[in-house]
Amino acid sequence: MADTEQDPGGVVALARDLIRCPSVTPDDGCGITALARVLEQIGFSVKLLPFGDGAARTPNLFARLGTGHPHLCFAGHTDVVPVGDVASWAHDPFGGDIHDGILFGRGACDMKGGIAAFVAAVRLYLDRTPHPQGSISLLITGDEEGPATNGTVRVLGWMEAEGQIPDFCLVGEPTNPGEMGEVIKIGRRGSLNAHIVVHGTQGHVAYPHRADNPVHRLLALLGELTAAPLDAGSEWFEASSLQVTSLDVGNTATNVIPAQAAARLNIRFNDLHSGADLAGWIRTVAVRHAPKAEIGISISGESFLTEPRAPVEALRASVRAVTGHVPRLDTGGGTSDARFISRYCPVAEFGLVGASMHKTDEHVSLSDLKQLTAIYTGFLEKVMR
Amino acid sequence: MADTEQDPGGVVALARDLIRCPSVTPDDGCGITALARVLEQIGFSVKLLPFGDGAARTPNLFARLGTGHPHLCFAGHTDVVPVGDVASWAHDPFGGDIHDGILFGRGACDMKGGIAAFVAAVRLYLDRTPHPQGSISLLITGDEEGPATNGTVRVLGWMEAEGQIPDFCLVGEPTNPGEMGEVIKIGRRGSLNAHIVVHGTQGHVAYPHRADNPVHRLLALLGELTAAPLDAGSEWFEASSLQVTSLDVGNTATNVIPAQAAARLNIRFNDLHSGADLAGWIRTVAVRHAPKAEIGISISGESFLTEPRAPVEALRASVRAVTGHVPRLDTGGGTSDARFISRYCPVAEFGLVGASMHKTDEHVSLSDLKQLTAIYTGFLEKVMR
Repeated sequence: MADTEQDPGGVVALARDLIRCPSVTPDDGCGITALARVLEQIGFSVKLLPFGDGAARTPNLFARLGTGHPHLCFAGHTDVVPVGDVASWAHDPFGGDIHDGILFGRGACDMKGGIAAFVAAVRLYLDRTPHPQGSISLLITGDEEGPATNGTVRVLGWMEAEGQIPDFCLVGEPTNPGEMGEVIKIGRRGSLNAHIVVHGTQGHVAYPHRADNPVHRLLALLGELTAAPLDAGSEWFEASSLQVTSLDVGNTATNVIPAQAAARLNIRFNDLHSGADLAGWIRTVAVRHAPKAEIGISISGESFLTEPRAPVEALRASVRAVTGHVPRLDTGGGTSDARFISRYCPVAEFGLVGASMHKTDEHVSLSDLKQLTAIYTGFLEKVMR
Repeated sequence: MADTEQDPGGVVALARDLIRCPSVTPDDGCGITALARVLEQIGFSVKLLPFGDGAARTPNLFARLGTGHPHLCFAGHTDVVPVGDVASWAHDPFGGDIHDGILFGRGACDMKGGIAAFVAAVRLYLDRTPHPQGSISLLITGDEEGPATNGTVRVLGWMEAEGQIPDFCLVGEPTNPGEMGEVIKIGRRGSLNAHIVVHGTQGHVAYPHRADNPVHRLLALLGELTAAPLDAGSEWFEASSLQVTSLDVGNTATNVIPAQAAARLNIRFNDLHSGADLAGWIRTVAVRHAPKAEIGISISGESFLTEPRAPVEALRASVRAVTGHVPRLDTGGGTSDARFISRYCPVAEFGLVGASMHKTDEHVSLSDLKQLTAIYTGFLEKVMR
């Protein structure tokens, strides 16, 4: 660890140390352990929170420095997705190679680099403000890339029970598509999956009046669900989107009307809808066309939005001061653990450039790591005052 | 064979003889051979016409009595569908049991009984008119219940080449749903099958603008094809019917827009359409919604109609005279070999009660056999004069 002009706050050294820990989900033990040691050295009170059963226990960590308010929490994960075909990597995925100012390795941008930048920022902030009024915490899980059932969700439950819910949470996922400073995420769309099975009466195609074609009922049902856009978007969200992802009958007899027809669909919805409202709408439309349809609906996340008030504006100002860009406030893309955190406190996401995440030769430039460290430091100075 | 008041023309004896021949498609040799012998005894000139290759040759028969006109042909088949679970039969499927005035056995009504009635009718007719002016023929195949590729179609080709096309053809399939005299079939709807494969661009459901969902294209395409009835029926036909019989995507990933979606459909169409017109319509609609769709269309039969002129009216009068019912002239239901015959000459269908056909304990009442013999005899007398 070298806290020098070359490595402010030790961000590069910590990012390398974390990458060298092969913490592929669900085997993240070493990632959490390595981080816990570093945080304790800084002065954090660290609580290891493994959740789940037996060998499948998910390692998690909650660390807090101080007890006052404002309480700012940084959330992230040390687990990484598998490397895929190692032979196609030019660099050891767990070697932490640095070449021409680029640090390579699985997790470099998603999101060990982000965690290292926040820890480095805390060091730099504490150098200038040894006794902050508020408190700083980290919520780190070893299962964000996996099923995520014993990760952030469980830690939040524990935090609530212990009176440790923060005033604001910053998630360090890589939010920038191409270069530092482009995007702060302040919300996400919700996601709903439906599986619809329509039953009819089998029969010969020559005598349709003696059968009840479930395919035609399903077509009418889906026709109504897809007839019009769900909305045109809202102030902070793009339009909601319904996609039918599968149709399943599997009837190869050309002269037989089948007994059953099924479909799957997914809705990504904005803050104009709730999962329950959409589920009710699907059931109402289904009953109209297929009264006996079986409908299974699961809501994997409601939409959420953190209105761009003080902490978001502080983050935006810090990004601008460091990069020169005014970041776009965005709510697009897939889900992250922010969907769980949003149930407890305002949350925003800002991190590295994500272009190489989940890919071969995942990497981050040292200059991006240093910029992110400076952005997080500036953010701490603005919100902790 | 007993030509008595109990068994006019020997219909019951011949029906039993034919049932006792286990002529399940494609092993119909004995059925055709047994019939050929009987026809030769009556005075028919019999031509055995096996078509097809090697062991899979289909036995067929064309027999004609006389060479003059009018030339009336009776068409049918001696092959039968499999018996299924023999244990569930109360009677030996190939035993020809008679119990309480009912003859049991596979083929009793579909259509060995019909053939026996026609042969008996010819005997009775010749008893009264030993030297008819016109001629009577039989076109019998051993492959109507199977693929039907080397049966009636091939015999008709041979008949055309030999100058043996009749003036009118009567098919002896069981046309009566519940009792004798209900229905004469004077046409059939055509049948078209289509297989539509729509290609799109796979992608994540969260980014539909980067994908091209083939399911939505297919839904729109099928929505247009099924939006309105094809017609409201015509003078002699019920309405045409389009049935989508399968939908196939098979995508189990709820967050993925699939690359491909497929559907199968069947159209049963009346004389307001041709197979080619419908195929063109499907292609035009498909191009509008999915320009790159792959569309496979096969037309298994065009619709046909025998206008109810002299021979049909003679048949109707004979049915009425014997049963007291005025039979309905119908064009509904599935296909039969009449679809092939209609390309060469007018054709109508009338036979036994079909309620037990293809079922366990298939049967025919002796009284129905005698009624059908009387109807065919009356028909011969009316049309051969």
